[in-house]
Amino acid sequence: MAKKVLIVYAHQSSGSFDTAAKDAVVDILTAQGCTVEVSDLYAMAFKAAATAKDVKGNLKSAENFCYLDESKLSWEQGNLSDEITKEQSKLAEADLVIFQFPMYWFGVPGILKGWFDRVLTNGFDFSQDEPYCLETLKDKKAMLSLTTGCRTAMFCIDGDMTVTLWPLQNGVLHYCGFQVLAPQVFWAPDFASEEDRWNMLAGWRTRLQGLLEEEPLSFTPLDRFDKTSQLKPDVHEKRARK
Amino acid sequence: MAKKVLIVYAHQSSGSFDTAAKDAVVDILTAQGCTVEVSDLYAMAFKAAATAKDVKGNLKSAENFCYLDESKLSWEQGNLSDEITKEQSKLAEADLVIFQFPMYWFGVPGILKGWFDRVLTNGFDFSQDEPYCLETLKDKKAMLSLTTGCRTAMFCIDGDMTVTLWPLQNGVLHYCGFQVLAPQVFWAPDFASEEDRWNMLAGWRTRLQGLLEEEPLSFTPLDRFDKTSQLKPDVHEKRARK
Repeated sequence: MAKKVLIVYAHQSSGSFDTAAKDAVVDILTAQGCTVEVSDLYAMAFKAAATAKDVKGNLKSAENFCYLDESKLSWEQGNLSDEITKEQSKLAEADLVIFQFPMYWFGVPGILKGWFDRVLTNGFDFSQDEPYCLETLKDKKAMLSLTTGCRTAMFCIDGDMTVTLWPLQNGVLHYCGFQVLAPQVFWAPDFASEEDRWNMLAGWRTRLQGLLEEEPLSFTPLDRFDKTSQLKPDVHEKRARK
Repeated sequence: MAKKVLIVYAHQSSGSFDTAAKDAVVDILTAQGCTVEVSDLYAMAFKAAATAKDVKGNLKSAENFCYLDESKLSWEQGNLSDEITKEQSKLAEADLVIFQFPMYWFGVPGILKGWFDRVLTNGFDFSQDEPYCLETLKDKKAMLSLTTGCRTAMFCIDGDMTVTLWPLQNGVLHYCGFQVLAPQVFWAPDFASEEDRWNMLAGWRTRLQGLLEEEPLSFTPLDRFDKTSQLKPDVHEKRARK
């Protein structure tokens, strides 16, 4: 069956490398028969702040407003704002979600962080009681595709890219239950020659040809942890011996 | 001389534990003779999206808008939006900056990420050409003070808190040249008993008494890296031997 792809895209300008990377996804996956939808966050003027306006009904506690609780309750009652509900519908439909963004301050731009904060609602796509194992998203894949402002070498001082992306890949995507595909990192396209930019895009287009068949990254399976969320003693021992 | 303190505060509700933590700073540091200013981001309806609206003058390139370049140019020309300029003035005055927020998705809330993206302007408080060593902020201290939604134990699966905070502490604060104080982590106050919440606050108030004298965290000094940003061979060897 034809796959559905959602691109959550966070760049202000149509002339950017991020746009070219996003357009490559639309181009190649559409040619493979996929339906590709784009949430263009800046064009949508997507609200980044998690506020009481996200709840259409009455608040449980206006004076002691807790976004995590209020948004969960509101989701259960079907009272989340239309903007959030629309994004959640796209997410519910998608087989693959690609987040395309320029890295700002070692993370996602504020507008995309707002999308995570507001669309990934407690109850809908994660559960505080059952982190990493809610069923809603378990058959969906997700991945980060990002451009950096610095050259590869700098990341020796900055810290490994895997460490930098850990809060996003483990913390957001894996926690929500997504199967996480390896990130696509475009190193400093703004400093690259025309030829190097072209080569980066060509590499991405090649990867996209087989993207839907890629195996996801592996994370430590949940059954290796005990009920208090600590690694089980035998797992610890095995690791220490290695 | 009396110190100036800036609290960048990101919680929606005055009844929250984050508010109590912020109020403790105001209370104790004011009593020590400091001037304490609060940027209450939700109350200010602080814009989180980095857009062309942040530039008051003409854009260098509207069609190929690059926020990093445009905001740098705009800062040099004194053309940044009033909202940003005001925050930058507060930052320029401050001796100590405390970021008080609830952790959302293993990072700062979107509204605070927007503050980083927009106020920490290329040229003003960091330099792409000289990361980690711009002089503007070198005498200033900064720290994260955060509440979590999960209990300590969960962070075994989620990954160590130090790793989770690395993109913020090294990537944002240290990169900008701040001296970074150890983070204050309030574990799951929403799940804690009244007594435990009180104890957490009491611990914070005690720490605040000596906060201005605390030694900052240490990061690998820049002179251990060569011109290509790799660790120098002798540093590598010494570490390997350890």
